[in-house]
Amino acid sequence: MLDESYIQITHQLAEKGKGAVSPLSLRGVVIVNDGKIVGAEFLKDRLSEQPEFILFSKLKNIPKGSVLYSNINPVIKSGEEERYISLFRNSGIKKMVFGVLDNNSLFYNKVAKKLKENGISVISGIMERESADLNRFFLKYSSSKLPFVTLKMALTLDGKISDINGNSKWITSVESRSLVHELRTEYDAVLVGYNTVKTDKPSLTVRLVEGRNPKRIVLDTRLELKPNSDLVRKNNDNNLIIVTDKKNKDMPKLAKYYEAGVEFIFVPVTSEGMLDLKSLVRKLGKLNITSILVEGGGRVFSSFIKSKLDDEILLFIAPKLLCEGIPLCSGLGINSLSKAHKFQMNDVRKIGEDALIRLTRR
Amino acid sequence: MLDESYIQITHQLAEKGKGAVSPLSLRGVVIVNDGKIVGAEFLKDRLSEQPEFILFSKLKNIPKGSVLYSNINPVIKSGEEERYISLFRNSGIKKMVFGVLDNNSLFYNKVAKKLKENGISVISGIMERESADLNRFFLKYSSSKLPFVTLKMALTLDGKISDINGNSKWITSVESRSLVHELRTEYDAVLVGYNTVKTDKPSLTVRLVEGRNPKRIVLDTRLELKPNSDLVRKNNDNNLIIVTDKKNKDMPKLAKYYEAGVEFIFVPVTSEGMLDLKSLVRKLGKLNITSILVEGGGRVFSSFIKSKLDDEILLFIAPKLLCEGIPLCSGLGINSLSKAHKFQMNDVRKIGEDALIRLTRR
Ligand SMILES: NC(=O)c1ccc[n+]([C@@H]2O[C@H](COP(=O)([O-])OP(=O)(O)OC[C@H]3O[C@@H](n4cnc5c(N)ncnc54)[C@H](OP(=O)(O)O)[C@@H]3O)[C@@H](O)[C@H]2O)c1
Ligand SMILES: NC(=O)c1ccc[n+]([C@@H]2O[C@H](COP(=O)([O-])OP(=O)(O)OC[C@H]3O[C@@H](n4cnc5c(N)ncnc54)[C@H](OP(=O)(O)O)[C@@H]3O)[C@@H](O)[C@H]2O)c1
Repeated sequence: MLDESYIQITHQLAEKGKGAVSPLSLRGVVIVNDGKIVGAEFLKDRLSEQPEFILFSKLKNIPKGSVLYSNINPVIKSGEEERYISLFRNSGIKKMVFGVLDNNSLFYNKVAKKLKENGISVISGIMERESADLNRFFLKYSSSKLPFVTLKMALTLDGKISDINGNSKWITSVESRSLVHELRTEYDAVLVGYNTVKTDKPSLTVRLVEGRNPKRIVLDTRLELKPNSDLVRKNNDNNLIIVTDKKNKDMPKLAKYYEAGVEFIFVPVTSEGMLDLKSLVRKLGKLNITSILVEGGGRVFSSFIKSKLDDEILLFIAPKLLCEGIPLCSGLGINSLSKAHKFQMNDVRKIGEDALIRLTRR
Repeated sequence: MLDESYIQITHQLAEKGKGAVSPLSLRGVVIVNDGKIVGAEFLKDRLSEQPEFILFSKLKNIPKGSVLYSNINPVIKSGEEERYISLFRNSGIKKMVFGVLDNNSLFYNKVAKKLKENGISVISGIMERESADLNRFFLKYSSSKLPFVTLKMALTLDGKISDINGNSKWITSVESRSLVHELRTEYDAVLVGYNTVKTDKPSLTVRLVEGRNPKRIVLDTRLELKPNSDLVRKNNDNNLIIVTDKKNKDMPKLAKYYEAGVEFIFVPVTSEGMLDLKSLVRKLGKLNITSILVEGGGRVFSSFIKSKLDDEILLFIAPKLLCEGIPLCSGLGINSLSKAHKFQMNDVRKIGEDALIRLTRR
């Protein structure tokens, strides 16, 4: 088998850790000797040991001349470098092949060199694009300490996210909505504006598929979300985070929310009277939130786009024309095509009755 | 080989007639004996004989037990039935296999029965969907005498067809624009509103690829297009058709246009003060125009959508966000999602930097 095929297997393994490993990277590892896979492991959650540690203790001995494949280098904690290196020094592994290397890691900056000095060759760049894509949350976060931001929009062919009465249930087909629930299991947090909460009463949990709930973040400048609202009352998993004006920090009514297990993030308000998103994403990064799925509505999308805080946009386009309704963005003051926000189409495909387009900034 | 494979070959042959056979159908024919293709032909243009006539005179003799494959039945003119039947009676063909049958045809209603009486079996429905799709212009026209109408739009992710200053050059990539030129070679006519002529000064001809020009139709209620405009002056191929209020029928200035080879179509104006599109498409059908590519702008798209005269919509979606600009449709008074115009996604794919979505009404 080609190196590429083994890396592809590590991708499939790595994916099993989705939603559980953050803030670490999704990792699959296989050890191959003489064309045979002698061991396979993946990172199960943020508290697990790296897969190679598990494999080394599982396998009685690793045959001489084996190759270790992984989609990305391991996250090695400061102080653990020596343990890692000595494990390899005493193993049968002669070569390590990675999809992508995180150049902010201890592995990249220190460990790889030592391994090479010990006669173990370390190469990377096999299926690099796919490997980087799989760990895009982690790679963004490890280089910037900021979460990876995806704007997820359900829209009509003419770019409307709801009809003129504010109704957006349901623009897209059940297949699209299921995929959104699937995504929620993979992101650390979902985020909406208070108007969307008021209009749509979304529960922002995972129901159409199996999986854990993400954090639920609501932008609520003037703390309008009632303590007896569904979102607050049904906060059994303690995942609700309300973002509000830092002036609200000492409001007596906060107690009621805290009782319901709600967390608060206090941020400044900009000159336009809205929560400062730059400050917010920095704070979320500090809370180890490496990925956010922004689910609307129109004003929230517009703010993220305007401040170019989006890393990716996912458009679920339904085969419908409204011609009237709430646009996916507005008020950005773009008066010519040359000033349009420009993206790159990464995926274009059908999903159920809809089209799904994945874009990144250019 | 399977029947499906032979029909697929007839599709490839048939496509060579694109842009030339209208108002007839695109047709490829192969004759197969004992697993070997002994003859292949396609309809070259509207004046050619049907491919089987050509094959019968080309091939010295057709071996007994041969099968004739074609994507669609032949167009047999009234009075030619006997000639067709006797040709087959005296040939070695024992079976005819068609992709789709046009049930408005003499073949379907008369000839097929006679062939069967003469011991030739006639079957159809092999790759029927693809065959019907290939001849969708013809099948619509033959059943209704109305042209097949495609709305072709270049738009941003948020459904804008130009920026707020009316500039739409160029929303999409050169690959998309080349495909549009390719389409122009296949449609009998392209159509735009006068505002688009005024703003964009489009030439509406084929330049980025090889091929013949379609008819160029401009909706111009009050005959504002000047006789010294580019469209009129450069009408060397005599393909320009101006559609205007029937009240303008006797204007003295028409002479200037006629001199430049311009044709006129006069239609009534609706109570909303716009050219009556239903009347227009009927008239175009009478002129043997079987297909129209409607290229804009927003008001023209809106009118076609409102009157549900579109058979197909082609969206070229560029990876850009304008958030302000001219919407692809407006003023249709749709106040709820349940009343949205609904379509079916037939194709979703990438083209150059853009996405291409093909839709039909549901
Ligand atoms: N199709 C979809 O994908 C989709 C998804 C979600 C929602 N929707 C639809 O979108 C509509 C609601 O959208 P909307 O535009 O009215 O409101 P929105 O974007 O949901 O919410 C805006 C709210 O967020 C607050 N906010 C605080 N900081 C902000 C910032 N930096 N940027 C933007 N907002 C900030 C605003 O507070 P202040 O008012 O105090 O400024 C306001 O309460 C509903 O009709 C819903 O159905 C559609
Ligand atoms: N991206 C794209 O795909 C694309 C394609 C083409 C154009 N565009 C852009 O679209 C803009 C022009 O669009 P527009 O909406 O202003 O005008 P438009 O749709 O190009 O043209 C409307 C014109 O058609 C006439 N008309 C007559 N009967 C009509 C009917 N039944 N329905 C609609 N119009 C009828 C109108 O006459 P009356 O005024 O007398 O009513 C008016 O002069 C330009 O900015 C252009 O760049 C974009």
